[in-house]
Amino acid sequence: MARRRIEHDSLGEREVPHHAYYGVQTVRALENFPLSRIQLSMFPSLITAFAQVKQAAAITNGELGGLDPARRDAIVKACEEVASGEHSDHFVVDMLQGGAGTSTNMNVNEVITNRGLELLGHERGDYEHLHPIDDTNRSQSTNDAYPTALKLAIMTAADEATTGLEHLQAALVERSQAFAHVIKMGRTELQDAVPMTLGQEFAAYAVMVGEGVRALRHSVDDLHSVALGATAIGTGITSPPGYAARVTEILAELSDRPLTLAHDLVEATQDSGDFVSVSAAMKRAAVQVSKIANDLRLLSSGPRAGLAEIRLPAMQPGSSIMPGKVNPVIPEVVNVVCYQLIGFDVAVTMAAEASQLELNHTEPLMALDVLHGLHILGRACRVLADRCVAGIEADEDRCRRYVERSTGVVTALNPVIGYERSAMVAKEALATGRPVTELVVEHGWLTAEQVSDLLRPERLVNPLTVED
Amino acid sequence: MARRRIEHDSLGEREVPHHAYYGVQTVRALENFPLSRIQLSMFPSLITAFAQVKQAAAITNGELGGLDPARRDAIVKACEEVASGEHSDHFVVDMLQGGAGTSTNMNVNEVITNRGLELLGHERGDYEHLHPIDDTNRSQSTNDAYPTALKLAIMTAADEATTGLEHLQAALVERSQAFAHVIKMGRTELQDAVPMTLGQEFAAYAVMVGEGVRALRHSVDDLHSVALGATAIGTGITSPPGYAARVTEILAELSDRPLTLAHDLVEATQDSGDFVSVSAAMKRAAVQVSKIANDLRLLSSGPRAGLAEIRLPAMQPGSSIMPGKVNPVIPEVVNVVCYQLIGFDVAVTMAAEASQLELNHTEPLMALDVLHGLHILGRACRVLADRCVAGIEADEDRCRRYVERSTGVVTALNPVIGYERSAMVAKEALATGRPVTELVVEHGWLTAEQVSDLLRPERLVNPLTVED
Amino acid sequence: MARRRIEHDSLGEREVPHHAYYGVQTVRALENFPLSRIQLSMFPSLITAFAQVKQAAAITNGELGGLDPARRDAIVKACEEVASGEHSDHFVVDMLQGGAGTSTNMNVNEVITNRGLELLGHERGDYEHLHPIDDTNRSQSTNDAYPTALKLAIMTAADEATTGLEHLQAALVERSQAFAHVIKMGRTELQDAVPMTLGQEFAAYAVMVGEGVRALRHSVDDLHSVALGATAIGTGITSPPGYAARVTEILAELSDRPLTLAHDLVEATQDSGDFVSVSAAMKRAAVQVSKIANDLRLLSSGPRAGLAEIRLPAMQPGSSIMPGKVNPVIPEVVNVVCYQLIGFDVAVTMAAEASQLELNHTEPLMALDVLHGLHILGRACRVLADRCVAGIEADEDRCRRYVERSTGVVTALNPVIGYERSAMVAKEALATGRPVTELVVEHGWLTAEQVSDLLRPERLVNPLTVED
Amino acid sequence: MARRRIEHDSLGEREVPHHAYYGVQTVRALENFPLSRIQLSMFPSLITAFAQVKQAAAITNGELGGLDPARRDAIVKACEEVASGEHSDHFVVDMLQGGAGTSTNMNVNEVITNRGLELLGHERGDYEHLHPIDDTNRSQSTNDAYPTALKLAIMTAADEATTGLEHLQAALVERSQAFAHVIKMGRTELQDAVPMTLGQEFAAYAVMVGEGVRALRHSVDDLHSVALGATAIGTGITSPPGYAARVTEILAELSDRPLTLAHDLVEATQDSGDFVSVSAAMKRAAVQVSKIANDLRLLSSGPRAGLAEIRLPAMQPGSSIMPGKVNPVIPEVVNVVCYQLIGFDVAVTMAAEASQLELNHTEPLMALDVLHGLHILGRACRVLADRCVAGIEADEDRCRRYVERSTGVVTALNPVIGYERSAMVAKEALATGRPVTELVVEHGWLTAEQVSDLLRPERLVNPLTVED
Repeated sequence: MARRRIEHDSLGEREVPHHAYYGVQTVRALENFPLSRIQLSMFPSLITAFAQVKQAAAITNGELGGLDPARRDAIVKACEEVASGEHSDHFVVDMLQGGAGTSTNMNVNEVITNRGLELLGHERGDYEHLHPIDDTNRSQSTNDAYPTALKLAIMTAADEATTGLEHLQAALVERSQAFAHVIKMGRTELQDAVPMTLGQEFAAYAVMVGEGVRALRHSVDDLHSVALGATAIGTGITSPPGYAARVTEILAELSDRPLTLAHDLVEATQDSGDFVSVSAAMKRAAVQVSKIANDLRLLSSGPRAGLAEIRLPAMQPGSSIMPGKVNPVIPEVVNVVCYQLIGFDVAVTMAAEASQLELNHTEPLMALDVLHGLHILGRACRVLADRCVAGIEADEDRCRRYVERSTGVVTALNPVIGYERSAMVAKEALATGRPVTELVVEHGWLTAEQVSDLLRPERLVNPLTVED
Repeated sequence: MARRRIEHDSLGEREVPHHAYYGVQTVRALENFPLSRIQLSMFPSLITAFAQVKQAAAITNGELGGLDPARRDAIVKACEEVASGEHSDHFVVDMLQGGAGTSTNMNVNEVITNRGLELLGHERGDYEHLHPIDDTNRSQSTNDAYPTALKLAIMTAADEATTGLEHLQAALVERSQAFAHVIKMGRTELQDAVPMTLGQEFAAYAVMVGEGVRALRHSVDDLHSVALGATAIGTGITSPPGYAARVTEILAELSDRPLTLAHDLVEATQDSGDFVSVSAAMKRAAVQVSKIANDLRLLSSGPRAGLAEIRLPAMQPGSSIMPGKVNPVIPEVVNVVCYQLIGFDVAVTMAAEASQLELNHTEPLMALDVLHGLHILGRACRVLADRCVAGIEADEDRCRRYVERSTGVVTALNPVIGYERSAMVAKEALATGRPVTELVVEHGWLTAEQVSDLLRPERLVNPLTVED
Repeated sequence: MARRRIEHDSLGEREVPHHAYYGVQTVRALENFPLSRIQLSMFPSLITAFAQVKQAAAITNGELGGLDPARRDAIVKACEEVASGEHSDHFVVDMLQGGAGTSTNMNVNEVITNRGLELLGHERGDYEHLHPIDDTNRSQSTNDAYPTALKLAIMTAADEATTGLEHLQAALVERSQAFAHVIKMGRTELQDAVPMTLGQEFAAYAVMVGEGVRALRHSVDDLHSVALGATAIGTGITSPPGYAARVTEILAELSDRPLTLAHDLVEATQDSGDFVSVSAAMKRAAVQVSKIANDLRLLSSGPRAGLAEIRLPAMQPGSSIMPGKVNPVIPEVVNVVCYQLIGFDVAVTMAAEASQLELNHTEPLMALDVLHGLHILGRACRVLADRCVAGIEADEDRCRRYVERSTGVVTALNPVIGYERSAMVAKEALATGRPVTELVVEHGWLTAEQVSDLLRPERLVNPLTVED
Repeated sequence: MARRRIEHDSLGEREVPHHAYYGVQTVRALENFPLSRIQLSMFPSLITAFAQVKQAAAITNGELGGLDPARRDAIVKACEEVASGEHSDHFVVDMLQGGAGTSTNMNVNEVITNRGLELLGHERGDYEHLHPIDDTNRSQSTNDAYPTALKLAIMTAADEATTGLEHLQAALVERSQAFAHVIKMGRTELQDAVPMTLGQEFAAYAVMVGEGVRALRHSVDDLHSVALGATAIGTGITSPPGYAARVTEILAELSDRPLTLAHDLVEATQDSGDFVSVSAAMKRAAVQVSKIANDLRLLSSGPRAGLAEIRLPAMQPGSSIMPGKVNPVIPEVVNVVCYQLIGFDVAVTMAAEASQLELNHTEPLMALDVLHGLHILGRACRVLADRCVAGIEADEDRCRRYVERSTGVVTALNPVIGYERSAMVAKEALATGRPVTELVVEHGWLTAEQVSDLLRPERLVNPLTVED
């Protein structure tokens, strides 16, 4: 059996694997929460953020006299290692946990402390030389350290999601330019409406993604307000005067984020509104990306019995039974990811509403769903851009044929011949199969020249900017 | 100013409109909950059910000696009037209310009592002759009367929803028979798959709706277990021995429902699981009906630039701008209704989770969303059946052309020539525009006779039952 | 039978009640959508907004030559009447509708046109003198008019919700000042934590509501970008050059809102992201208000077997069975309202994701749920402020006793005697019932003076600002 | 660099790690779906179920002549190995995927085929001797194999969840017996109501969990209807006559589940209603378990400033800052898990609604959320039972004191002295602090003997069964 050491906490003793940087409280968390198999180590952005919080606290405690230089330096060095991704195997607690994040906080405290002890030349577990709570957690509570680290981690995750969204946006812009000349039928309520260009369609998607980015960025801005120094309930108990402002300043520097201290620390400790907003913005982006995925699947339906206006690049054989079939698997997985995020948003909402009195005990759920959600959103956008959008081709002939066959162009004659006559001629065209243009002239309502001028393509797809 | 009478309760006095059968506690409810403008009177099934509960209680109290015959008869007569829809204007409390339904219960108690007083020859408000709580509410608490009435009301609402669903099912069956001979392409992931008949497609929808009905019915079955006699928290305090069993028996008779007394009355008073199940079953049906609506919109897309395999009857001009456009407004409103129900299910879920200790204070939300949800689901199905499905026509030519143009039939050759050769020939067909049948013969893999036998239409669309 | 007139549209004829300002298309909508019994007339803000859109269009069409002065003036006058609340009985279409809002748009077009005809001295229905589509709907489509009107209506509804939220915020601020001196135990995870004041608790609630207001306001800001002039799909077909910019300008003036024209009209026509954001902000506020309601219910639990730190004003007798019981019905209905909004947010999300190609056919659901949601949120906040918060009283003695009995104060000794000794003494205090202060001195870890200084109340509840 | 082999599919070639049993299509899936880091290998129940499906198909194909004995035996042996948990490292595709599960199906096909090739003495990738599609996937499509395997996997997962729930139920029953004699105040709307026993409270929780089990079991029953043999769209194309019935029979035997063939295979291929029902039942159980967790947290609040009627066993130090604090981390994580499931249910609902025409492309999301949801629900219940409920202790003194101090007992006098006098005396008692019993006698309404008889504890907590 592997070598083990004994550690104790206020509830008693536990064996800890000798090699582990984590300690007794992490062991208890492993016993208490053997649930989802999704470990803290899957979220390096949260580990890094937590290490920065601990480092900022150590530096501040050093300045304010609560931590001697040797201990401070050991903690700082250990934090730097952890923040840079070392020791990640030691962050083993389940992301689904009770205790408002205490187990994550203690996992971090213990790893940093034991690594610090090593740096100081002591044995792991020899906490009289460096203590996970009295030193590493000094002037902190889970209740301020956890949400602060989470906010930093979300900023990183949101940056990645944003990068993915912008990458998708760029691919859509590129395609919109390539398709600027492709005239096609616009459709409302899935019925033939009026002409437009395929370029306009893709440009709209690009704008839509940009709107999602903008909303996501805005929601993240609010996270810059943190409550470090609030400690247990926002009153700052155990943190020395001046601590809150100073630790925020140092953490801002370490994380390179424009952090500010929350105005009301009691409120900030118990309110999860900012997480609701980030989750909602993530959901908004997902709704928009899913709509684009739906449209791509619809426009590429076929190849022979569908709309088939565009062709998506083939990414894998489509079927284990139908030879030659190629399915739109990339937009499909984008739907899957987006529906998952929409579900996460409901979970985050319920979690936020569960805040009771001075704390919300369900913060770990918000952490998991927002961080994981942003991760898969960003990845899905990148995949959609690179493995689908970038390779989309238009079937220009088919797009044009749809316009030519359609009665929708009659709308353009509306202001001249009136809605009721337009409707009559549209009906007649559908019944007889004859073009509306011909019928309008036959009825004597317009001359052939008038019709042809009113139906100039550029006038149809961009009437607002056409000089007459 | 209108004539008013003065009533009092334990908090003091209030003026009540002279004409009103309701009393002081209803007036307080109007003051406290001026919220949604959706009144109890919009839900006659709940009013009727409540009147039956009160009537059953009065009869039982009469039998067990707690209510003299005169009072009992007055209550019973008033209950019968209310149950039959009279006095509905007097049920004025907002459906959104606190107090776990106390205001609804008191509105009912007061109307019945004041109408009873009238029948006894007394003035409204003259409660020493007949008392809303001591007599009409005797042996009851809101906490058992309200959920029992709600369960009965849901049974009625579910019957109506079920009737609507079955009406839709019948319309789909009728169309599936009319379309039994229409060969068309089946599509998976919106890509051309293999042939089927339009009849099979509509038959599947009919079966789907039937599955929804079955699930909804099952969920309603569980509602037959009620906790009348549980009074405040399930211990039955204030209700005489024998009351619970007897009142359940009488209510079963009055309502013509196979009611039984819940096994654990404490549990039944605080648990909202049955409402979660009904809401979920309602949602399941909505998901299925919405999927059908989506398919109808897709299959009827066009008329010229869409799939256009079917034509929906035109129910209103489609557009205020595009002449001749006809939109699938009926399937569209079905989507709208179904998404509303899915949202309601989340609200019901949150409400159910909010049960605390011996009671769930949010029952009124579950009442509103389940009753209203079932109502609009049933109505939407009826509209979908009558104003859309019944009038759907197939474009048989187009359906057939899609099959002929498609490469999907190659799948049927798969077991004979193998997947890889099938895939090769499918690719070749798409690239050259030549039919796969021709290419297979050309490659010498099959004779023309073999191909033509393997691709007999009845074999394609119903291979499982074709004798070879 | 009531007198009726005959009207026709492109699908045929219908009888219209003679007195009605609405016409044939509204009649069709009544036939097609007999669903929820929640009519357009329940949402005056949407009617007013629509009238302003129609008025702005008429003025612009007049300027650009598409409408002669007589017709323009008739439309303008009719719009003014409608906007001011006249004729509201004529807005009868169901809020749940298909057609992306066409029925609402046509109901408005018809009422304005028929009222305009009257003003011009013609009969209702005599559309050759003033036409609901060619004149009143001129240069518009439902697809730009409906979302623009909806955005304006949401601004009004959000103003009302915001006013309600701010009213609640003010009541909370007032109470926080009244309770500034009440020392009490803070609780995290429902366990005794460390002391704070009841004033801090209510101040936090006030800040929380303020955060909700801020987020809601921000989400509404994005609605100022409208796509009027986009017409059917964003290309502006049928609207004359210069129309979009000018109509936006005029509508901004009429509505007194800083409207701007959307950058990409195609995108704006199909994307529902802004509605998702408003709904999410509404939900965020609801989550926060619901949390406050939960806390109020918890803090006032009792009167004898609960926390009972505060007393809520009695608003109605609490029970139909338990005499003297007073329930927290106002916070309870706030929960009910908030859960309803959270459900609405899911419905809005699904609706937004259902946008297909150039339009979202489910806009009417977003309209209903956002407008109704904001309405009940604002009302609930007002009720919570006036009928609950304003009358809350503190049980100061009980609050103080909890602090005195608690071991939580030991946290304040933590930085001096260390976490492990603090934990030991806390355990001992719980086991023996003796105060921690006494035990600490007994152990010789601190003198009585030191303890008493460290535990000065102002130091406990506001350590961050206490000079030492 | 590691040794690799080259494989090809209809889209071209890919390198495959030499050691891998999976092949080219799995490699493509890894490229296409680098999303969630949650791999198929985390769900052994799905792998086992899939292996059983493949085995049943191979045996049936052998019987019906489509597969020679050697190939059949190789497949069967490989399936047995996979089903028993061998080779689990080779199931590497991401659970979030497009293609309606094609990648999972192909991962399984490839592993079984390559292991089969090995058993036949051939090289991995040497597919002319055994082909992943022509042989291992013979007579199947992803569209029937995937949902069938998923249904079997859900049965296993539901069994585990049910075992967890029943384990919790048993722990609650045990505690209810231990607490049968503990008289306490029942509370409705968090206000003191009437007396009950702590045993009744825990018994109610046990019943509640049992109801959840019952609903979950019922929902799983519907999964026994499978559509194996439906192949691509339900018409059974490529599967030989007799195949569907026979393969279902064999699979029933292999899996030891009472499987039946679905009545309408087209419907069964596209409808996800059964997954919605399972998810809903899972959610229902979660709602109930979360309510119990909430109550446990509330009843154990304190230790000094809360209700403190029960004590939960201490599972970990509660706080990184507050010494001696012990938090209810186990019920807390139960909330976290339950909210996650409620979010999953929304995702499953959206996924189900996304079914289009003959298939639902989002089945992989339903697979992930239902399987993962059931897993964490079962684990959470087990943890709640073992690490919390089993060790709960009652504070009997405190429970009794609450009853003695309460005015709630006055309810029991209600039927004798009337509601209005009861309410009056309750108010008086609250104002004066005197017991209601004394006041009732003082008012001369009852004698001391009458009062004491009416308020016998057994009569208060179990009036329904007390003989008078």
